[in-house]
Order: sequence, then structure tokens, then C-alpha cells
Amino acid sequence: VHDGADRPLTEGEIISIIREMVPLHRPGVRVPTGDDAAQFHFAGGDVLLTTDSIFEGVHFDLGNYGFADVGWKAMAAGVSDIAAMGGQPACALVSVGFGEAPTTAQVRSLVSGTLEMLDWCNCALVGGDVCRSTAGLSLTVTVAGTPPQGGAVLRSGARKGDAIGVTGTVGDSRAGLFILKSGREELRARYPGLVEAHLRPKPALLAGGIIASAGASSLEDVSDGLGMDLWHICVESRVGCLIEERRVPISDDAAALAQEVGSDRALWALAGGEDYQLVFTAAPDRFDKASRLLGEHGIMASRIGTVRSGDDGCVLVRADGSRVDLGGLGFDHFAGA
Amino acid sequence: VHDGADRPLTEGEIISIIREMVPLHRPGVRVPTGDDAAQFHFAGGDVLLTTDSIFEGVHFDLGNYGFADVGWKAMAAGVSDIAAMGGQPACALVSVGFGEAPTTAQVRSLVSGTLEMLDWCNCALVGGDVCRSTAGLSLTVTVAGTPPQGGAVLRSGARKGDAIGVTGTVGDSRAGLFILKSGREELRARYPGLVEAHLRPKPALLAGGIIASAGASSLEDVSDGLGMDLWHICVESRVGCLIEERRVPISDDAAALAQEVGSDRALWALAGGEDYQLVFTAAPDRFDKASRLLGEHGIMASRIGTVRSGDDGCVLVRADGSRVDLGGLGFDHFAGA
Repeated sequence: VHDGADRPLTEGEIISIIREMVPLHRPGVRVPTGDDAAQFHFAGGDVLLTTDSIFEGVHFDLGNYGFADVGWKAMAAGVSDIAAMGGQPACALVSVGFGEAPTTAQVRSLVSGTLEMLDWCNCALVGGDVCRSTAGLSLTVTVAGTPPQGGAVLRSGARKGDAIGVTGTVGDSRAGLFILKSGREELRARYPGLVEAHLRPKPALLAGGIIASAGASSLEDVSDGLGMDLWHICVESRVGCLIEERRVPISDDAAALAQEVGSDRALWALAGGEDYQLVFTAAPDRFDKASRLLGEHGIMASRIGTVRSGDDGCVLVRADGSRVDLGGLGFDHFAGA
Repeated sequence: VHDGADRPLTEGEIISIIREMVPLHRPGVRVPTGDDAAQFHFAGGDVLLTTDSIFEGVHFDLGNYGFADVGWKAMAAGVSDIAAMGGQPACALVSVGFGEAPTTAQVRSLVSGTLEMLDWCNCALVGGDVCRSTAGLSLTVTVAGTPPQGGAVLRSGARKGDAIGVTGTVGDSRAGLFILKSGREELRARYPGLVEAHLRPKPALLAGGIIASAGASSLEDVSDGLGMDLWHICVESRVGCLIEERRVPISDDAAALAQEVGSDRALWALAGGEDYQLVFTAAPDRFDKASRLLGEHGIMASRIGTVRSGDDGCVLVRADGSRVDLGGLGFDHFAGA
């Protein structure tokens, strides 16, 4: 007997499936999903709020992504924005546009991936919206969270002489995208970690909290690409920077793949984006403290350069000694449009 | 000299224009738009949260809507969800997907309409996201607000014997849509209020606060259509209802237009949607109190029926005495897909 799992659903049916899957009772949730608005209690009253959208055909392709991957990744991007303030996520909302009526299996998969990400970071799904779009699948997530004890770490606090650091490795997500786009199953089998880094990124929540508590002067997540994201910090802080390509942390897998396929690993690392690592600045003593604390939690932090005066510009010293302006690196959705 | 107002913009340029237009300093805003997340202070710590999306080609058509109308209406839908809890909006975020690179004039118009709505209800714009979509213009708004003193009014509190009321008139928005779709300028000139009701709806914030303070048992905004929205209340409250078509408040303009063009004014009123009026239930004495208080503020409230036992179903008595099930009225984005 066929259970209708691949029959197109009505809006009411989609909402029923979602409500069935979302846990109602979690700490802080006063009114859960299902009413006009959710009600959540934030102790202290200071709330971090962020919103992010992803669109099929622009940010992802359902040939490479499962519905669960889309749900995970959209939510991870929002959670990462909270990590980039040094905060912790508390509750989230998701608005889904379906290009065509989805099946039960597709709805279940999308919600599963979303909830897996939220469970991973102990965040409650408290609301959302479902509607039809004219262009495939799209998700907009909103994440609300709490700032760290000492206050959120902004993009605008970098000062001349601060050390510049980045957590983990960068470029893995771009390397994973390369594999997915190549359609080469053998690459996917040999580099599963790179594909995972692209499809299922894990926001650096623990690192963000540690970096904030160590007294970092600025903090941002690596979403547009390390070069572009660091450039944002410099613009907001009215400073310049000098970073060295040879110090940028690249995983062995990403380096090996880049060599194998003849790509520029540094370009993946600096302009790839969607790594959801953290880039931060701190006075040298505080940088050392952050680095030590991160190490105690098994998190690598690399010093990639130094904050300079705004007059000195934002400069990347490439491996061959040539100099590139950071503002020109990274992703602009409308570039060339 | 041409100022480039109709040149396609880059993502960075779009964000610059938006940041230039959004006021940074408003009460409660601790970290404004421009960082990874915004930070807002909510006295008391209880926060109402809602998210809503609209897509070009599904919810609106740029042949009829200006960019400013799209911004206003998207934000009004989110604010209305806060009104439907009896609350007040505090801050908002908006994520915009552009199908093609917009011009300066388009970005300015979109942001102006959004800010006009937010200024109207004293709500701060604290964040957002800009990206490319494959499907024309889309907006997802998130609105955060504060619940009323006595607690939010949910959909689930209706009890047998309660009176059912609706604020203002319903069907005007659908009548306005009829005019826009007809392309008949003379209709637009004769019924400007109906077109305005569709393009620039005003959420019933004052009414929501009054209805909550009067002790209403349930409350919801009229977004999908009065019939469907009341049906939601009945489902969540596990009750039935009986409403009478002849008691449903319809404006003189909507009635006149329906007669002129041979449409069913009751269908506009009951299934049209997007009126952003409020439908509520209250024990008879509290209903009278709400009605009196609303009247003192110049807001009309009409009693359209009574809450019954769940076994009696959700019934609309039509003008000709025939009976219709409410669950069948209203809008499903995927119906017939």
C-alpha cells in the first residue's frame, strides 16, 4: 500500500507535518509555534537578532543538496551570526518558500535537517511561515540569542597593533563545493570531510564565547570569504590590515584536492566563503589568552596578520610576495549583474 | 548629468544605501543594523517573534505594486501578527531577495515603504540581509515585540458561549485587488480607499491592545480570510462556531463595487484575506467591554456570531439561509497544485 509520501501536499498539510515534528516544550518557550507569533523569555532582556536567506539556484542546487542539507545549512548561517557576536542562540524561526507543492518526504527531510542543527546548538524552533514561491525552494531563518556576559563583540572595535586570528581552517567549504559541482563520486568518497564542511557547516559557538571572554576587540564569521569578512572589520573599525597568505590555515585535504585539480588553494581559503569559522582581532596579550583558551578546548586559532592604520590599506601578501587589496576578494551576489 | 539612479547596483552598494536610510539610534537599540546580528533590549524579557514572506508573482505583481508598497505591506503583515497577540512591535528585520540587480531608485523606494510602516508603529529596523533570488523580488520580515500586560491572547482560548467579533470592515483588501487586476483606472479613481486597503494595510495595533486588556479569550488577525482565520481559532480551541453572513461588516465602497462588477461581496469579506483586521472571541460581558472601549477609540467592532461546542462544527449561515462549512473558505497557497 502506497502511503502518499510523494504526493504534493496542501499548505495545511505541510504545516501539520511541521507542527508534529517540532518539540513544543523547551526552556524559555512561553508560546510555541502555531499561533500568530511565538513568545520566548530572555533572561536579562538583551536579545541578539539576525536574519539570513538562501535561494535554490543561487545558494544551492537540489542536484547536490538534500532537503535536510538545505535546512541544516540555512539555520547554521543564522546561528553563526550569533556566534560572531560571541553569543549563544536561544530560539529560531524559519520561513519556507516552496517552488512547487512538496511531498511529505521532502517536508520531513527539510524540517529534520533544520531541527538537527538546532538540537546541535540547543536552540528552540518557535515559529515560521510556509508559502509558495515562483522560484524553487527558499529559506529565510531568523535566530534570536543572548549576548555574552561582557557584551557582544562587534566588527568596529579593531585597533592598530591588534593581532588578527582565524579559527580552524578555511577553504574547506569551497573545496567541498568544487567536489559537488564536479559530479565526481570518487572525489566525494575520498574527501568526505570537505563535502561535509560545505553541506553541514558547524557554527563556531564555543569559539565565539571563548574569544569574547578573552576580550577580543572585533569578531565576525567567515561567510563571504576570509578576505571580504576581514575587510568588513577594517571598514567598520576604520583601520587597515596586513595578512600573510602563508599563515592562512588550510586543511591537508583542501590543499591536496587543490593540487590534484589544479586550483588555487589560497583563493579557496581567502575568497571561498561559507566556512563559518571566526575571524577576530585582539590586543597581543588578549590574543595569546584567546589562543590558549581555544587550545584547551581543542580549537586551533592561527595568527594571520596585524591590524594597521587605516591609511595603510587592507593588504594581503601572497606567497610569491605580491600584494593584493583585500576589498577585491570575496563574494558579491550582484557582481557582474 | 546622469546620476546613475537607474544603473544596476552591486550588493555592497545596495547595503550602503539601506544603511544610510535606516536610523541607528532608537530606544532599545543597543547594536543597530550593520554587524553580524543586532542587539535590542526588551524590558521584562518576554519577546513576541514572528516571520512572514512575500514573493513577486505569488503575493504581489510589480505591475500593480510600487516597491514602496511591497516594503510597507510585507512589514505590515509581520506587525499585524504582533497585534494579533495583543502586543506592540519593538524591532524588525527584513531579508530581501532581488531577482535582478536593483537600481538606486528601487532600493530607496523599497526601504522607504518599509520604514514608513515601521515609523507608523514606532518600531525600529535593526537588521536584514540582501541577496539575489531566482524568482523576482521577495521579502521576509521578522518582527519582535512585547506582549500585553495581562499576557498574549492566543488562538486557543475560545470557549462555548463566547461572542465572536471582528474589527473594522473586511473584504476591502480583496476589492482593492480586484480593481488593481482589472487595470481600470476609473475604478481606481472612484475607490481609492479600497486600493489603499490592499496596498497599504494598517495593522490593528490599538485594537489588539484594547481587546487584550478587555480580557478576550482568543485573538487572530484576518490574513488568510475571515472564514479561514476564525476556523484556525476553532481548531486550536477545539470548539465550533456559528457566524451569520448578514452580520459580517462590509464597507459601503466594497459593497458598491461588488454590485457594480457582479462579484459576491460576502466571498470577498469571508475569503478575501489580507484585511489585517482582528477576529476575536470573548465571554459576552467582556465582549461588551471590548466593544465599548474600541468605540471610545473610534474603532468599530461587530458581533458576527457565537462560539459553540466542537461537535456542532464551524458553520456560516449565508444570507439565503444556506449553511457552509468555514474550513472550506479562505486561501491555501498550494490548493490545486
